[in-house]
Amino acid sequence: MELLVVGSIALDTIETPFSRVDETPGGSALYISISASYFTRSIGLVGVVGDDFPEDVISELQSRGVNLKGLQIIPNGKTFRWAGKYHYDMNTRETIYTQLNVFADFNPVIPDEFKSSEIVCLGNIDPVLQMRVLDQVYNPKLVIADTMNFWIERKYDELLETLKRVNVLIVNDAEARQIAREPNLIKAGKKILNLGPEIVIIKKGEHGAVLMIDSIIFSAPAYPIEAIQDPTGAGDTFAGGFAGWLAKTKDFSEKNLRRAVIYGSAIASFCVEDFGINRIKNLSWNEIQNRFFAFKELTKFEVD
Amino acid sequence: MELLVVGSIALDTIETPFSRVDETPGGSALYISISASYFTRSIGLVGVVGDDFPEDVISELQSRGVNLKGLQIIPNGKTFRWAGKYHYDMNTRETIYTQLNVFADFNPVIPDEFKSSEIVCLGNIDPVLQMRVLDQVYNPKLVIADTMNFWIERKYDELLETLKRVNVLIVNDAEARQIAREPNLIKAGKKILNLGPEIVIIKKGEHGAVLMIDSIIFSAPAYPIEAIQDPTGAGDTFAGGFAGWLAKTKDFSEKNLRRAVIYGSAIASFCVEDFGINRIKNLSWNEIQNRFFAFKELTKFEVD
Repeated sequence: MELLVVGSIALDTIETPFSRVDETPGGSALYISISASYFTRSIGLVGVVGDDFPEDVISELQSRGVNLKGLQIIPNGKTFRWAGKYHYDMNTRETIYTQLNVFADFNPVIPDEFKSSEIVCLGNIDPVLQMRVLDQVYNPKLVIADTMNFWIERKYDELLETLKRVNVLIVNDAEARQIAREPNLIKAGKKILNLGPEIVIIKKGEHGAVLMIDSIIFSAPAYPIEAIQDPTGAGDTFAGGFAGWLAKTKDFSEKNLRRAVIYGSAIASFCVEDFGINRIKNLSWNEIQNRFFAFKELTKFEVD
Repeated sequence: MELLVVGSIALDTIETPFSRVDETPGGSALYISISASYFTRSIGLVGVVGDDFPEDVISELQSRGVNLKGLQIIPNGKTFRWAGKYHYDMNTRETIYTQLNVFADFNPVIPDEFKSSEIVCLGNIDPVLQMRVLDQVYNPKLVIADTMNFWIERKYDELLETLKRVNVLIVNDAEARQIAREPNLIKAGKKILNLGPEIVIIKKGEHGAVLMIDSIIFSAPAYPIEAIQDPTGAGDTFAGGFAGWLAKTKDFSEKNLRRAVIYGSAIASFCVEDFGINRIKNLSWNEIQNRFFAFKELTKFEVD
């Protein structure tokens, strides 16, 4: 397997000032897998759903070459549900409810054929579970992980243990500040680089993303979107594009990591154009490539 | 004159969580002039101070080739004073007091030898005064203007009139949203492009700046600064570097406007490294050039 993805799979109810969807498929593992599937068809997914999870989404994943041997479907179980509401500026949201359901007892079991995966992408789950995944895999070339304020606040020590085994941490700006306990974002990133990861990516929503490797900093803008429909999953979509590009190219050089950030940003920019996975499941390679080039136009300037 | 600068000159009292300075020279016209003086020695300044304004700052400006024929020094007058306090994250500040003093009756009188200036840079003053400046000058090649929430709220109609005569509007993100009455920044920028200016630059502080020309968007990051001492004047320093580069090169092509944004960003990144004008008055051309190249490193990625 080129890429192992472990994370949540959910049914999301999302409200924005302009529209609303009920129980649309989501969760970090779903966004990551779909996004990465544009770069590699060698993806193993590990997650859990109830038997209420829509079969067409399962077929969709399979048709993308996502191996679902690691997907636990709990009979008579209810899939994890989340409901959130975005405010007018689309940058802030509040959680209306979280129903963990079958996700409450999630214990990631990595199928044998996934254990030699080259890249492991750990979506935002309990750092204890992230470690349990790493205990089962055989020496991956790259471990990518995400986390969130919930775990930073409740399982800080466990998170620090996990970070020692992570190569690339992908977090948003608030999470970076919270992990490092440092308000300056650049200082926060550097502090995290001392906690284990060799690479930190700080996502800043509409302000783009910053890649930090040692003292090297790469700053990528967000693609300017005039009509953001739904920001849900954009961060996971970014991680999926980033991981997928690296899985495809097997090149972890600084030069290629910069490119991976742009591919992640490109697919994430599509994600927000529609609700849930609606937009990212219907992309053409041409659209992705054109948006990659659009990032070049967006950032280019000549010295002379 | 290559560049005419009109704006405020002040004595600023600035408090940050780490330090404090009392009555340090500031104001938009001062920051713009000093920043632009690295690119051109043909600058005319129009502003007003009291006779309490430090003479060494006046000498400093003169030594930089800033022509002070348009500087009114009011006998027995007190210079405009502003006091502000930055919060821990350095992104938000509150005004402690504003004492307009001689600035309350400021009536910009453009000396004859300034009237044929090629570029006019209007710092953040009453839009009525900005128009009065434009009434006095002879067909400048480029008019650059700034404004702020105070005028947007109190003199919206007058501001709209001014905008019809402005080529480049430089504002921050909150101001852009407020002028356009539109929360989405890209939409807001496009709306402003319909109000008169051919070019809009939206400053986003630590998130950089966005240049918009018709449907072309250029996104520049901010230079990552770990130890921000004082953000005061960074926006004006940006405008000064931008205007100065254009005055030096006399090339208003899209390609050169992108470069001008990076030069503005480069000098602004120095500004925040120390209080007031302390850092920007002591730059070498080499430092500016190296930071320009650092922006290239910060943003570069290769397609293949």
